[in-house]
Amino acid sequence: MSVTKPSLPKGTRDFTPQEMVKRNYIFDTIKTVFRKYGYAEIQTPSMENLQTLTGKYGDEGDKLIFKVLNSGSYFQKVPLHFLEYKQENAVTPLISEKALRYDLTVPFARYVVMHQNEIAFPFKRFQVQPVWRADRPQKGRYREFYQCDADVVGSPSLLNEAEFVLIYQEALSNLGLKDFTIKINNRKILSGIAEIIGKPELIVDMTVAIDKLDKIGLDGVSKELLERGFTETDIEKLKPVILLQGSNTEKLTSLKTVLKSSAVGLKGIEEIETVFNYILNLKSQISNLELDITLARGLNYYTGCIFEVKTNEVAMGSIGGGGRYDDLTGMFGLKDLTGVGISFGADRIYDVLEELNLFPAETVQGTKVLISNFDEKAELYALSVLQELRTAGIATELYPTSAKLKKQMSYADAKNIPYVILIGDDEMSSGLLTLKNMQSGEQQKLNIVDILEKLKAA
Amino acid sequence: MSVTKPSLPKGTRDFTPQEMVKRNYIFDTIKTVFRKYGYAEIQTPSMENLQTLTGKYGDEGDKLIFKVLNSGSYFQKVPLHFLEYKQENAVTPLISEKALRYDLTVPFARYVVMHQNEIAFPFKRFQVQPVWRADRPQKGRYREFYQCDADVVGSPSLLNEAEFVLIYQEALSNLGLKDFTIKINNRKILSGIAEIIGKPELIVDMTVAIDKLDKIGLDGVSKELLERGFTETDIEKLKPVILLQGSNTEKLTSLKTVLKSSAVGLKGIEEIETVFNYILNLKSQISNLELDITLARGLNYYTGCIFEVKTNEVAMGSIGGGGRYDDLTGMFGLKDLTGVGISFGADRIYDVLEELNLFPAETVQGTKVLISNFDEKAELYALSVLQELRTAGIATELYPTSAKLKKQMSYADAKNIPYVILIGDDEMSSGLLTLKNMQSGEQQKLNIVDILEKLKAA
Repeated sequence: MSVTKPSLPKGTRDFTPQEMVKRNYIFDTIKTVFRKYGYAEIQTPSMENLQTLTGKYGDEGDKLIFKVLNSGSYFQKVPLHFLEYKQENAVTPLISEKALRYDLTVPFARYVVMHQNEIAFPFKRFQVQPVWRADRPQKGRYREFYQCDADVVGSPSLLNEAEFVLIYQEALSNLGLKDFTIKINNRKILSGIAEIIGKPELIVDMTVAIDKLDKIGLDGVSKELLERGFTETDIEKLKPVILLQGSNTEKLTSLKTVLKSSAVGLKGIEEIETVFNYILNLKSQISNLELDITLARGLNYYTGCIFEVKTNEVAMGSIGGGGRYDDLTGMFGLKDLTGVGISFGADRIYDVLEELNLFPAETVQGTKVLISNFDEKAELYALSVLQELRTAGIATELYPTSAKLKKQMSYADAKNIPYVILIGDDEMSSGLLTLKNMQSGEQQKLNIVDILEKLKAA
Repeated sequence: MSVTKPSLPKGTRDFTPQEMVKRNYIFDTIKTVFRKYGYAEIQTPSMENLQTLTGKYGDEGDKLIFKVLNSGSYFQKVPLHFLEYKQENAVTPLISEKALRYDLTVPFARYVVMHQNEIAFPFKRFQVQPVWRADRPQKGRYREFYQCDADVVGSPSLLNEAEFVLIYQEALSNLGLKDFTIKINNRKILSGIAEIIGKPELIVDMTVAIDKLDKIGLDGVSKELLERGFTETDIEKLKPVILLQGSNTEKLTSLKTVLKSSAVGLKGIEEIETVFNYILNLKSQISNLELDITLARGLNYYTGCIFEVKTNEVAMGSIGGGGRYDDLTGMFGLKDLTGVGISFGADRIYDVLEELNLFPAETVQGTKVLISNFDEKAELYALSVLQELRTAGIATELYPTSAKLKKQMSYADAKNIPYVILIGDDEMSSGLLTLKNMQSGEQQKLNIVDILEKLKAA
């Protein structure tokens, strides 16, 4: 076996024990809230048939799907001229029938269609699994990353939308975030606006442009609208809508006037009002919920409400988003099933919590006590102490060989172990063991019963 | 977008909510024990560089590695004649630089080498992640399955081996298994036996043959030994060793006599005795720990103790195994680091618990209460009840639209929701809500305070 200098594929990461504790904290906190709202976990395979994924993410997306090479003599059925002319586009589907999951939504749609006879609709599922994209890696963008999604299919009720707002509110608060904004919009309001201007066919161009208001300002948006086929007159009509100010109620009142002649626009307003009412009756006003009619997010996908969450404490893109999509499962032949879902951006939330120093100091998952090991006699004595602590459910290690004190202390430090029990000759003869608090440096001589009591309480 | 009939790649599986609850139960139980013994979790990427994996699993293993196709114009650098002659062996490394992880051990070795400067040795890590193998799928064998490993590197102490026996004991008992055997052997004992017979070079042939004693009996083993280059005289010498009977102590006593002239053999016996002594001092005798000198398990890998666990309650292959391997990280250029580890066969354990009906009846992870929804007025009333229950931490759902009682009850049944709160006109006027126990069918009229109390206790 030759020696290989070890390296990782571009855009992928190892997670160390310290990172895993933090990641588990984020995922566990979010999962607990999902469960409280009646969502149940599923998992799907990492590999899907290539045809399940192809054509679902646009041409650019298709290129970013990682394809898995067939096993064995994979060239056998490939016509020779495809190879001679190096025609990858023709060859790929012949030498690769499987691919790595690109998101959790398409596999979920596939799951619903394949399991439709055993599912009790409405089906509320959550899923936390990695996805893979052959994107160019850059800061904060990886080729393997986790998605953290909750969706419900088969229920048109806007109670679901309201509950998703509460789920964001509760999960992010539980993670310690204090200042974040949950933005909401409705595709039907955007359709209504395009209709009023008399350019319903340009709805995608319109939303792509006004979605950039934050970045390029009103002048930039106007310029882009002109380039995309709108007139100065159209833009004059659009301006009051784009620059809509005030409370959610004030915005809705203005919009009702603007959109009074658009049935679809009024329907969108009604949906938003219903969501707000549900929230009001569930919890009272949520002060950080903001109607933002410039919010679009992959518009050709969503058909009703659209969500996005931003933190105001750190400069960072959105940390969550989602919306309602009618006919999610149509691509797999199951018609008229409406869905609505949200996603948490776990990697970004990780960076936010890190920057704000919000991870709990207690790494409760790690070892709580290290027992020292100075010689054979002390080791033998330590074995029974070790067993007593573990029987009490306390995560404990005995340093596995006799070693110098300094080495053992460094080990405890490196692993963030909060307590060390020192066992030397004095301790063995008196039965009073030295318990050292690694944070404060304080040492106490205690018998095993008192140590157990102290550590269980700590 | 054309309609695709959905299907799954061969050998892969979806996990439904019911299955996920059970799988999480197994993984959580095992992880809790790993943590209690001081093991910390890490994760590695699903994809590794192909050269990291190639040559580590033998020629057969290499064929079973799933290779990931390079993105873009992947044929560009491939010499044309490789393609014209369809030489897959030459083409594969040129069109695929990444591959899916085949096990957790090689990625772990790669991790240790890459992170050696930040690791506090001995490094005790556990890892629970999927692996992929392009094996022919069959009952109980999948192309994607989870491995569940704990290993320690950088510690030659046999305390680690003893603790792994306790980890098996504790985790499997916590999962409800009552009758299982933890088998232990030592590669050095096998070396000693081959040495005594005077055929040290045939140790692999010898162990492959005697490993089959269970399946083909003594006659079969003898026949195979003859075929593999042993003489009748050799086999006569081997017989008493193969057929070793009695308690562990009796076996060790016999072995000491047989192996008295083999230094390595005696070293193996000493190691086993040390492990037994550690266990004795930690916990007292473990009655289901059995020295089995026919146990080999991938011998060219292990260098010291070898473990295997079998359940005696169900006909099933081993549900766990492992051992010590010196020089694990040598393949990546880091010499002289010894490791020892074990693995739990989670899929097989799942099947065993299913067959023995050992999964806890309480699906604590699911929704606990469904609130009925009969009309708009009742829904409005229900919203505040919903919020009160959730605030108390109780996983609750409101049926999201008004519907017939039967439909809502079917939903609760299908999701295994143990309680339903019925809210009709009577309930709204009296404030006494009907709480129905879905298991017993019993109904009670209670105010919200009593309901909260009852559900928190349930």
